[in-house]
Amino acid sequence: MSFDRLIENIVKTQNPSVVGLDPRLEYVPEYIVSKKIKKYGKTLKAASKAILEFNKAIIDEIHDICPAVKPQAAYYEMYGWEGVKTLYKTIEYAQSKGMFVMTDGKRNDIGATMEAYATAHLGFTEVGGENIPAFGADALTVNGYLGTDGIAPLLEKCRAYDKGIFVLVKTSNKSSGELQDLKLGSKTVYATMGEMCEKWGAEVMGKYGYSGVGAVVGATYPEQLTELRKALPHTFFLVPGYGAQGGGAEGVSKGFDENGLGAIVNSSRAVMCAYKKEECDPHEFAKAARREVIRMKEDIISYLPKLKLPD
Amino acid sequence: MSFDRLIENIVKTQNPSVVGLDPRLEYVPEYIVSKKIKKYGKTLKAASKAILEFNKAIIDEIHDICPAVKPQAAYYEMYGWEGVKTLYKTIEYAQSKGMFVMTDGKRNDIGATMEAYATAHLGFTEVGGENIPAFGADALTVNGYLGTDGIAPLLEKCRAYDKGIFVLVKTSNKSSGELQDLKLGSKTVYATMGEMCEKWGAEVMGKYGYSGVGAVVGATYPEQLTELRKALPHTFFLVPGYGAQGGGAEGVSKGFDENGLGAIVNSSRAVMCAYKKEECDPHEFAKAARREVIRMKEDIISYLPKLKLPD
Repeated sequence: MSFDRLIENIVKTQNPSVVGLDPRLEYVPEYIVSKKIKKYGKTLKAASKAILEFNKAIIDEIHDICPAVKPQAAYYEMYGWEGVKTLYKTIEYAQSKGMFVMTDGKRNDIGATMEAYATAHLGFTEVGGENIPAFGADALTVNGYLGTDGIAPLLEKCRAYDKGIFVLVKTSNKSSGELQDLKLGSKTVYATMGEMCEKWGAEVMGKYGYSGVGAVVGATYPEQLTELRKALPHTFFLVPGYGAQGGGAEGVSKGFDENGLGAIVNSSRAVMCAYKKEECDPHEFAKAARREVIRMKEDIISYLPKLKLPD
Repeated sequence: MSFDRLIENIVKTQNPSVVGLDPRLEYVPEYIVSKKIKKYGKTLKAASKAILEFNKAIIDEIHDICPAVKPQAAYYEMYGWEGVKTLYKTIEYAQSKGMFVMTDGKRNDIGATMEAYATAHLGFTEVGGENIPAFGADALTVNGYLGTDGIAPLLEKCRAYDKGIFVLVKTSNKSSGELQDLKLGSKTVYATMGEMCEKWGAEVMGKYGYSGVGAVVGATYPEQLTELRKALPHTFFLVPGYGAQGGGAEGVSKGFDENGLGAIVNSSRAVMCAYKKEECDPHEFAKAARREVIRMKEDIISYLPKLKLPD
């Protein structure tokens, strides 16, 4: 009902970062893509099979040094239902290797419909008395614009199946301030959303001081990371925007607590496309991804105390 | 690049309502479910095949009297990738019958990722030089919490492929006010979001006075419908919450303009489950759905002028 399993994975690997699996077909080495096109034609099926092979190879190389992966639903939906099948198989494979899987879907809706999303991504769907996990992730990103009755169905699943959610609070993009930074009286919209996370989280507290309701706070806004870390002591942060979007390791360190916990930093393209940046043999793409995971981890922990579970 | 095709469908059918295809397996008559379970076992595949048969039968019965359908993504994701395949096939089937299809996904993300969603739902995915529609809907609901760079990629698709989006402004649920009604200075969050819709929409204006950027405004808030209809003259409204959630026809009439246009009212469960309410033979479920579509249409237009294209 919390992020305890994620926190344990982080301490075990001494790595507070997550690899975003956001695989555009252009990221997949040509030799894999052409092999699948030869077999399945120029189809969404070929693309989806290529992406699955790519993801699995990366997971094989990083699962012992990285606590989690974060597949971004958009990049799977882009390849149609075949792509969504690859999302399912990627989640299943990463979990089989012991990784914590957070689906980045930013889902949101009202009561009954949000319950369907909660069931889809964190729960079990009933068919003729059988309970089947539709996607079975460990955590899901969500958007809280609709208020408490869009969040309540998720809290139930967090409690029943030991899962977590990350609510968008302060996103990493340039125009995030258009709405999120506006002031409601003396408080910003994002601070208000953050307070709601603390409130919702009180129902699903874990044993390491963090609840099952986390917050997305962009690496590109270190001041807000500092402010929110202080204001939201029980809220675990998912921090996108490191690297490609311009967030640095010193900045992201503001999201962590005195045990080096409380946040996990995402990197997607820099890991998936490390082989392009290195200009190494494309067959070595997964090993290049591993090297980038290690580089990133060392960059981030150089600003943190040794990661440890609280006493 | 706008809702012109939707508006033409509405005038042709004299029906400003849309049927939400949110098919929980419990809504599908037992004889269909058991047939599929017999063939495919107690699986997500059986559930997904049952839902597809149900959807197609409803579309067959209503396509001549109803301008549009709105499949809700959550209820397909709930049945895994097989369910998402049913979403794809439902969209394809409804379009083949001339219906305007709006996928209710409330998608949201930043730049490059939002572009992937835009490609997935409104555009074409490139594989080896072929451009393939992944889901190919006519419109998509989206959440604007992330600001302009979460919306810009959608506007491009609207322009290129004659599509539309609906942005959440004031949702129909009880706790929608927790964030949406808060005041930013003298203006509410929802009014601010509404203004953004007018601004974004200016780039994708249609020929009947409405842009390709619509707004979701709940039937359960007639005062806000009145306020927003006046404040947002170029923004087409998608109005959920009629019937089951307590919104009445007189209230929803506030969302329409002097030509009986400017809004489309959604009903999901009341149509899909009309056969349960009528207690008729379950084999007549699609005919019962048709009767409910007619009843709803007559209820709504009784408060409106004759629907016509503007001079």
